[in-house]
Amino acid sequence: MTLDARALEPRRRVVPVQVTAVRGERWLRLPESLAAEEPLEIRVAFGGRSEPLGITMRTPGHDFELAAGFVLGEGVLPGQEAIASVRYCTDEPAQRYNAVTVDSGVPVALDGAARRFPISSACGVCGSSSVEEVLGRCPPSVGRGPDLARSLLVSLPDRLRAGQEVFDRTGGLHGAGLFDTTGEMLVVREDIGRHNAVDKVVGWAALRHHLPLSASVLAVSGRLGFEIVQKAAVAGIPAVVAVSAPSSLAVELARRVGMTVVAFVRGERANLYSGEDRVVLDA
Amino acid sequence: MTLDARALEPRRRVVPVQVTAVRGERWLRLPESLAAEEPLEIRVAFGGRSEPLGITMRTPGHDFELAAGFVLGEGVLPGQEAIASVRYCTDEPAQRYNAVTVDSGVPVALDGAARRFPISSACGVCGSSSVEEVLGRCPPSVGRGPDLARSLLVSLPDRLRAGQEVFDRTGGLHGAGLFDTTGEMLVVREDIGRHNAVDKVVGWAALRHHLPLSASVLAVSGRLGFEIVQKAAVAGIPAVVAVSAPSSLAVELARRVGMTVVAFVRGERANLYSGEDRVVLDA
Repeated sequence: MTLDARALEPRRRVVPVQVTAVRGERWLRLPESLAAEEPLEIRVAFGGRSEPLGITMRTPGHDFELAAGFVLGEGVLPGQEAIASVRYCTDEPAQRYNAVTVDSGVPVALDGAARRFPISSACGVCGSSSVEEVLGRCPPSVGRGPDLARSLLVSLPDRLRAGQEVFDRTGGLHGAGLFDTTGEMLVVREDIGRHNAVDKVVGWAALRHHLPLSASVLAVSGRLGFEIVQKAAVAGIPAVVAVSAPSSLAVELARRVGMTVVAFVRGERANLYSGEDRVVLDA
Repeated sequence: MTLDARALEPRRRVVPVQVTAVRGERWLRLPESLAAEEPLEIRVAFGGRSEPLGITMRTPGHDFELAAGFVLGEGVLPGQEAIASVRYCTDEPAQRYNAVTVDSGVPVALDGAARRFPISSACGVCGSSSVEEVLGRCPPSVGRGPDLARSLLVSLPDRLRAGQEVFDRTGGLHGAGLFDTTGEMLVVREDIGRHNAVDKVVGWAALRHHLPLSASVLAVSGRLGFEIVQKAAVAGIPAVVAVSAPSSLAVELARRVGMTVVAFVRGERANLYSGEDRVVLDA
């Protein structure tokens, strides 16, 4: 596996800027840090052919993980074993860090790849089967997996925040973290896009051949939409904890694949939207 | 203009669900409301041909505004006058409310439309000009517009929240609101996707031929990314207020087009990232 050079450049995730701080009637110039946002083109290649899948606005860093998680979550490659290598584009030196190619080890239907995306130029029939089509990409079930203690689940938002503090000096980043059933943090990733943070976590696991993540819990800052449940389901994650509210379709998909969804976590209070059978009281 | 039937169905924006409320050791079943999330396919049509532009996961309601704002913000149609009509797809009765077609009154390069999207199946050369290309879609300047009082700008997050309260019982919706220079709210729209909320606001104006919005201020809940500044710039909005942090590229674009960006608003405290010349003290 090629080295992810960006993983060594954490400073690129933050951009310094001068701002005018308004403090009531007092104004003063202050230095501030902004979350870096840059476009990343993700390509997939096989047998000498390469095809762009899309451009995502992302926070630089862990770009190889992002690309790996993206191609798996979107169903472009069938599994982690199909990822032969990941590399930055070298055609354009100036754009070296803004285009990543995932080399597939197995034939991939390059022409059809673009059809799979939620935002896509060609989504087939007039909306008729779009949700069913996306649901069809998910495994029928995430599997039973281990029991999960209530106390563990409600503790994850705080643990995620503690992990984020290391990096986030900007207030502008979404976090996603993977935990084992004892609450140990396996990895935490941040990005200006909530989907990207999850792709980076899944890609981290994929590049280490740790999928499926059947004994792990994913925690995400903020809200829980359909696409994050879908990405977690593809990665075989049996439980997701979100700080804020889930969407209707997120809960629908979680129930369909048997995933535990805990959301609206506030201290010892939380709501359990699906997969209650996996959660055990720990009195 | 065809009537937006969904605008008459506010209940579809919320989906009732039974949850298990965890209150420490106490668990109880409770009814909850979730923000509705459903796919919407947006199509553009001219001269008997119709092409899908993409599918967005959105909160139902104001779908025609969403589609109108989307095609303008992405540069698919050149301006509000080019929108001849907006209609739901009638090919598939079951999907009637999940596909919207914007009929163009002027020729549109349908084959090229898909190339314009940030997440696109075909983004041209290997990442080489993607940011420049997107920046190129924006007007060179949003124009001078009126002076804006500091007290007005810092008051907008609270005014937006007050407008959102009417609809948001789910904790899961982003809000975008348009205000005049006296702080009067012109329109507020909500969506599970922050870009969609802005598209709905811009589409609301476009369908009434109110563009450019050169005397208005846009307020958004949450963070401010590149794409929201871009959508506001295309709509001619001279100032954007965000509750939370902007991204590096959002500030870069705002400075390039001369847009005022106020963010991190907390009571009388706020940060001014660009367009300071438009802001006046109101002692």
